[in-house]
Amino acid sequence: MKFERLVGDRFKERPTDCVIDSHALMIRGGYMRQVANGIFSMYMPLRRITQKIEQIIREEMDALDGQEVLFPVALPATLWQESGRYDQINDELLRFTDRNDTPMVLGMTHEEACVHLVREYGQTYTKYPFMVYQIQTKFRDEARSRGGLIRVREFTMKDAYSFHTSQEDLEQYYDQCHAAYERIYARSGVPEVVSVASDSGMMGGKIAHEFMLLTPVGEDVLVICEKCDYRANMEAAENIVENQLVRKSDQLTLVHTPNQKTIEEVATFLNTTSESCCKAIVYQRKADNTYIIVFMRGDLDLQETKLSKHLGCEIYPAIITEDSGLCAGYLGPMELDKNVTVLFDASLKGLSDLVCGANKNEYHYTGFDISRDFANGSEVEYHDFAKVVEGGICPKCGVKGIAISRGIEVGNIFQLGTKYTESMGMQYTDSEGKIHTPIMGCYGIGVGRLAASVCEAHHDDYGPIWPMSIAPWQVHICALKINDEQVAEVANNLYRNLQKAGVEVIFDDRAVSPGFMFSDADLLGVPVRAVVSPKNLKDGVVEISKRDKSLSEKVAV
Amino acid sequence: MKFERLVGDRFKERPTDCVIDSHALMIRGGYMRQVANGIFSMYMPLRRITQKIEQIIREEMDALDGQEVLFPVALPATLWQESGRYDQINDELLRFTDRNDTPMVLGMTHEEACVHLVREYGQTYTKYPFMVYQIQTKFRDEARSRGGLIRVREFTMKDAYSFHTSQEDLEQYYDQCHAAYERIYARSGVPEVVSVASDSGMMGGKIAHEFMLLTPVGEDVLVICEKCDYRANMEAAENIVENQLVRKSDQLTLVHTPNQKTIEEVATFLNTTSESCCKAIVYQRKADNTYIIVFMRGDLDLQETKLSKHLGCEIYPAIITEDSGLCAGYLGPMELDKNVTVLFDASLKGLSDLVCGANKNEYHYTGFDISRDFANGSEVEYHDFAKVVEGGICPKCGVKGIAISRGIEVGNIFQLGTKYTESMGMQYTDSEGKIHTPIMGCYGIGVGRLAASVCEAHHDDYGPIWPMSIAPWQVHICALKINDEQVAEVANNLYRNLQKAGVEVIFDDRAVSPGFMFSDADLLGVPVRAVVSPKNLKDGVVEISKRDKSLSEKVAV
Repeated sequence: MKFERLVGDRFKERPTDCVIDSHALMIRGGYMRQVANGIFSMYMPLRRITQKIEQIIREEMDALDGQEVLFPVALPATLWQESGRYDQINDELLRFTDRNDTPMVLGMTHEEACVHLVREYGQTYTKYPFMVYQIQTKFRDEARSRGGLIRVREFTMKDAYSFHTSQEDLEQYYDQCHAAYERIYARSGVPEVVSVASDSGMMGGKIAHEFMLLTPVGEDVLVICEKCDYRANMEAAENIVENQLVRKSDQLTLVHTPNQKTIEEVATFLNTTSESCCKAIVYQRKADNTYIIVFMRGDLDLQETKLSKHLGCEIYPAIITEDSGLCAGYLGPMELDKNVTVLFDASLKGLSDLVCGANKNEYHYTGFDISRDFANGSEVEYHDFAKVVEGGICPKCGVKGIAISRGIEVGNIFQLGTKYTESMGMQYTDSEGKIHTPIMGCYGIGVGRLAASVCEAHHDDYGPIWPMSIAPWQVHICALKINDEQVAEVANNLYRNLQKAGVEVIFDDRAVSPGFMFSDADLLGVPVRAVVSPKNLKDGVVEISKRDKSLSEKVAV
Repeated sequence: MKFERLVGDRFKERPTDCVIDSHALMIRGGYMRQVANGIFSMYMPLRRITQKIEQIIREEMDALDGQEVLFPVALPATLWQESGRYDQINDELLRFTDRNDTPMVLGMTHEEACVHLVREYGQTYTKYPFMVYQIQTKFRDEARSRGGLIRVREFTMKDAYSFHTSQEDLEQYYDQCHAAYERIYARSGVPEVVSVASDSGMMGGKIAHEFMLLTPVGEDVLVICEKCDYRANMEAAENIVENQLVRKSDQLTLVHTPNQKTIEEVATFLNTTSESCCKAIVYQRKADNTYIIVFMRGDLDLQETKLSKHLGCEIYPAIITEDSGLCAGYLGPMELDKNVTVLFDASLKGLSDLVCGANKNEYHYTGFDISRDFANGSEVEYHDFAKVVEGGICPKCGVKGIAISRGIEVGNIFQLGTKYTESMGMQYTDSEGKIHTPIMGCYGIGVGRLAASVCEAHHDDYGPIWPMSIAPWQVHICALKINDEQVAEVANNLYRNLQKAGVEVIFDDRAVSPGFMFSDADLLGVPVRAVVSPKNLKDGVVEISKRDKSLSEKVAV
């Protein structure tokens, strides 16, 4: 490939709307172009990178006896109604009607389509286990697409679905997939990707892992124990509380707390600590706007995903109106409107002598004891709704010293259980003629996001540093002064010979300055560069260097 | 691959809803499954076939210096508004709104997305010519999907777009693409595909060719001259008329023709021929329901596409209501409502002494002469609106004997001109600093439709006969009585050795009857079959046969 024929523009200035480096470099380097919010077209270099990633994934899936299939992008709503997800998923699921007003969706994941494809096939136990996968376009109508290919609305994804007759068989296959994923990341040049326990979210099922590239620009927050191997997404990490305040409560007392609304203000005013306060966090259900109040130890914050999962519905931070009956800033567990759902975080368990709101403007209670003062207080259930904090207790080894990191999710695997097979009526007969519901696993990788993550992990100020395995080309020949006969001859020979040897070569023979040529080469990020110049040829050498600067030497022609 | 692990069901009965063989065989053979009207999921064998076709196409496009890119499936309506097609195309273009109520479409073709991608790149003449292509999912909301993969709503397509600075350069590249297409069909196993001149339809531009697999089940009608090499789609073929009735007209006379409504009835009643009648064909514009009447020689039929193209708008066969002012059955050119568009087909040119309706119930005129009797009749323009008829005159060589055939369109190429570049403001500067609009070509192949067409062209009652180049596997080993130790050993060795030699093998070692095994193998259509059986092994041989029955021999183990 001649560089001068490469469609796409390269430029120096960082686009102002790019927050993360991989996004900026992939725009600056002529890799892609935004078509709409979260929707990109890819130029040839990026298409080559994604094709190489797809091939690595394909090989690893085939090695797990996966069978490549293809599901449609546009799916009838009826399929999603069968599983129940048509109503469960919010606006991320793009719904539309076709010319006959038939409701349809754009596939954001293909569990339903997969069960539809294999439901008849999998009617006897002898067919199990099996796995099918596809590499196909998906659409998720994200509210906040960001970071170039990191969070987009349309993307290419490999999604695999396995079917099993026992939980043990699923678990064994799940472990194999986990290992295959590690190989995929290693082969794609990011062996540093780690897996973390995750929340299964809208997918259903219980056990799930996300594969994370740790980076400060990641949008996922991770909880990592440095003492053991515990790693989890903040959304799924259990917050362990060690309450040291175990004293008997004073009498419940109403105190005047004018203009003291935040926990810090109240604690200071009453000469206590925020750990001794019972904080109220208010949410509303999306479906009917009804209120939920979570009471929590004053020094902690709410993890919204945990609350949403506990309630089994979509929620949003409350807007407390005057006619809500809620006394903003002074909310407490007692004498609350009966229509409000009241929940207690595990951090309050065993605590006494608390400060809490009195549901009365400018008043708090002191000496509050849930089991003594709250109606049926001794029967209150406590659940985990709080965010894990830096330095907290590891839920696995119990040692203090949790670290909070950020990461980009570059893949996920789920033990789905029977959520889809049961709702969609997939069954098989065992060897004794008994009927069962198969157990499912699913395994996803976003191809474009992985490409961007590799760029995020491996780049410098001048451009991406693509690993050999996924680089758009392997060797980049820069011919300085192509008008020089000797340069032209050596460069052209090198180009021809490398191509003959099966090497993917991009050849820059433009009549441009070395600085211009090298900055374009840096943006293309090809791992090996060969510079043919009159100066080098005088010494009978060609300069070979690696894009990652690990090598630079002169080699005889 | 072990046959018994192949996901998908095979069965004997032809599904009742399958009209054409390839559809029936691809359902019966476990190739695909319908998800919704015109939307299919593919099982592994079909996915492998389409991947091989995609690879053949990719190689041929790369050989034309094509650069593989990727455009989005979901596109913002604004892009289609730029080109004007958002309003020009009817319900086939699936329109929807995203979560922010932004209007979007599902890409049915990607001219707009392509110009968007290369508009900035192509600003100077030195960048030309260039071609980019993608292999990607497309969606067309067809009113009548049919024939399995022949006419679907969602499909994978290779679409290529070339950009040029002169018509000559486009034409030269267009010819190269034409040759590449012929190679693609030959390599995919259907060298019998022919190209025909076609109407460019909604694509714009003037010169266009369709590649057709001639078959009675095709939905396109083709006009073929057996004397010269003229081939055209009926929609684009010019109808040549040789009027032999050149006599002077009698006087225009109103005659009573009670209950004579059709041309045949009127001709018989008036003791003349339908060639001497001036027939009226009525259409309405889709946009405003206004009427168009085309007058044509009585023995010919209207080609709707020609009329639609002439008018530049969408039309439909008229519904003549009582308040339309039109006298159904007795329509003629004279004294018609001024709001009706009147057009004359070329077949009426030079004719005289015609019978035509009198726009009065139960009355016709005889002796009608357009140039004499119609207002400004000598200035009437005649256009070609008629369907070519079997045995008609070739528009190229002028010899009588046109043949009408049917075909499946398996690809098309268009000289688009500047329709998209001009409307979307793509421009380049030439060597003298002058600004021009680049000229575009586009080149499409539907991958699934090509797979189905190969099946349609090459199958028998028992299944498809896949050409080696696109077959899902190359060799199918049938091991009869795998419990026989020798059979197991020979078959397993063969399987291993062929795989080691890089051959794609499917291995059927199920404990089923030979008849069952062979009928499954027929449905899979793998070109070479190796049968390992106790009987053959007694003679020290394995039976090798070709699926197309061109070979069957016993080969020593």
